[in-house]
Amino acid sequence: MLLPQDALKYGKEENLIRAIAAYAGARAAEIGAENVFNFSIGNPNVPAPAIVTDTLREILDTVPPAVLHAYTAAPGLYDVRKAIAENLNGKFGTAYGAEDLYITAGSSAALAMAMKGLLLPGDEVIVFAPYYPEYTVYAECFGGVPVILKCREPDFQIDIARLEAAVTERTKIVIVNSPSNPAGSIFSAETIAAMAELLRRKQAECGHPIYILADEPYRELVYDAETVVPFVPNFYDNTILCYSFSKCLSLPGERMGYFLVPPRVTDSRDVYAALCGAGRILGYINNPSLFQYMLPACLDATADLSVYRRNRELLLTNLTAFGYEMVKPEGAFYLFLKSPEPDAAAFCERAKRFEVILVPGDCFGYPGYARLSYCVATETVERALPALKALAESYQG
Amino acid sequence: MLLPQDALKYGKEENLIRAIAAYAGARAAEIGAENVFNFSIGNPNVPAPAIVTDTLREILDTVPPAVLHAYTAAPGLYDVRKAIAENLNGKFGTAYGAEDLYITAGSSAALAMAMKGLLLPGDEVIVFAPYYPEYTVYAECFGGVPVILKCREPDFQIDIARLEAAVTERTKIVIVNSPSNPAGSIFSAETIAAMAELLRRKQAECGHPIYILADEPYRELVYDAETVVPFVPNFYDNTILCYSFSKCLSLPGERMGYFLVPPRVTDSRDVYAALCGAGRILGYINNPSLFQYMLPACLDATADLSVYRRNRELLLTNLTAFGYEMVKPEGAFYLFLKSPEPDAAAFCERAKRFEVILVPGDCFGYPGYARLSYCVATETVERALPALKALAESYQG
Repeated sequence: MLLPQDALKYGKEENLIRAIAAYAGARAAEIGAENVFNFSIGNPNVPAPAIVTDTLREILDTVPPAVLHAYTAAPGLYDVRKAIAENLNGKFGTAYGAEDLYITAGSSAALAMAMKGLLLPGDEVIVFAPYYPEYTVYAECFGGVPVILKCREPDFQIDIARLEAAVTERTKIVIVNSPSNPAGSIFSAETIAAMAELLRRKQAECGHPIYILADEPYRELVYDAETVVPFVPNFYDNTILCYSFSKCLSLPGERMGYFLVPPRVTDSRDVYAALCGAGRILGYINNPSLFQYMLPACLDATADLSVYRRNRELLLTNLTAFGYEMVKPEGAFYLFLKSPEPDAAAFCERAKRFEVILVPGDCFGYPGYARLSYCVATETVERALPALKALAESYQG
Repeated sequence: MLLPQDALKYGKEENLIRAIAAYAGARAAEIGAENVFNFSIGNPNVPAPAIVTDTLREILDTVPPAVLHAYTAAPGLYDVRKAIAENLNGKFGTAYGAEDLYITAGSSAALAMAMKGLLLPGDEVIVFAPYYPEYTVYAECFGGVPVILKCREPDFQIDIARLEAAVTERTKIVIVNSPSNPAGSIFSAETIAAMAELLRRKQAECGHPIYILADEPYRELVYDAETVVPFVPNFYDNTILCYSFSKCLSLPGERMGYFLVPPRVTDSRDVYAALCGAGRILGYINNPSLFQYMLPACLDATADLSVYRRNRELLLTNLTAFGYEMVKPEGAFYLFLKSPEPDAAAFCERAKRFEVILVPGDCFGYPGYARLSYCVATETVERALPALKALAESYQG
């Protein structure tokens, strides 16, 4: 077969998370959705805030279609980018402008553009496990070499000594996802500062920039009032921010996000241009215009996060009582459970017997754990508790 | 600078068409939009049909946001793909199914996925000039070698003898854009049949598939009742169709299109998988969901094409009378004018003195011509006629 092996592989590869979600769907059809406790996917159950729908309606009523649905500039409408930049400036004391931003089809598109726009063949991309599986797809397919580093247990912070040992002359990118999928951990200011100090030293040694890609789709999904998610660009100049509105506005299907190349990035205009060129190469013309028009009114809105807060509390309290060990989730909407047996896939198979659907950590480069997505109705969590209890007890027999 | 040269080049490169459009904008600010005759861009002036807005409103009123804005399957909602397939089947006597289609961010994304999904390093991509400039961007950046063949003058059909001479053992893709941007020509059934026969013979000789990418964003923009745009997959099995709703529904900013891998393509499931894998690699998760929901109701709608028909008639009649030579445009909304002087860029510069904004054919790999986009208000065409006349006369002095 004369087709590119990477495309064929990633197209044919059983996407395990989707396969598990498909099983959950089939099982729901069989025994009723209310009898299946599907914790497999990160598709928010909480609806988008009303301002999203209201704004979309208002735009349809007021902006003439020939204007509304026209091509925009490739990086997006200037005024929309300006509004996003000013919103960031208000929150983080920065001085970004429209010209530093590019509106993308979610964080995934931003990450793909960043890797295509930065990587030369053989460049190394450091990824902290557990990780979102597409990181290594983009890294590999755009010529890079993924270097996987396990987070430090039990707090799932970056292991700075391990990072120091892993940085080489070919290190080009370090991906930092906080709050993280699937661990739900937030890298502390101390961790980020230590990483920044290390990378500055390594940059000086190797004589070329090392970029942090800060992938932050879960920034707003934080549950303790005192928790602060460090804003990585304020710690380290060569940070490119990849953001998504999928989770905070419950709009994952609409593909809205952006990348930001702060002016303090080395040769920032060239880096911005390379990422723009990457977007062009990857077939992006501009992000859908109706949703661009929507954004400025919604920058300070979020979906009702209290549902996730309630789910998290319920699960943390009860699962701990049932004897499970887990990473304490500070953000996002995932619980990363330690598997009661060494093989997490076997644990997830056994969970199915109790109609509990989980994803083995192997999917995220981290065997021995399983991901429980709690972006579901609280009622689902409540009704799942006896099953989760019975599952735990099945190991204590 | 340690950045990939292709990304940097395509990001920094002055996009000449956008630069010309920017000049038109600046000039309009200076002397009033009504005094600038901006024929530079393919951004439809005719609004989307009312059914688009009506359907969007109805969806916002009836589909719960947590469903409406959720992730869809990567290729798109099954029922939407089924509706598109059935619409094609009704029009072309085919038997496509949802599983043959993948909803993309316009035809550009479909083309990028197809080239990433098909090309191995050194594979040749035949492109007929004049051509949409992104064809060679995708071909080059995904490892291919663009091979540019001029169309036959004066009818701008494919020159079959030239094609025969150009096909080699490394030919993998032939891009066929009809109705075409920028020539507005439609390849006849005779042309397509001859090309198909030639490519079947060449496939047999070289022992591997040669794919036609049929890029058809202008399929519905045809002006003579008797003109038929041949449906390439019915002429040649190894055809992958790339379609866009940008022009027929006047929705270029919303990025809706699809690719179709017909079951008659050699190893069609592998080819489909490779294109899916390419989409994943390029950072596409799913095309925006609201507009997916909109599509089924709008598959037989078009924007009011009578505006373009009127503009075309007005321009053809008058420009011919003024002494211009041009390709007779059968479709799309472009006139490809022969430059009255050998250097089309100089002609376009001179046109600016008459406040007429055109794009030199050099941008489309075809020097000596200039593109006039007539997707503008008819009033603009009417008021531009004296300027176009004076421009012609300036050469006859």
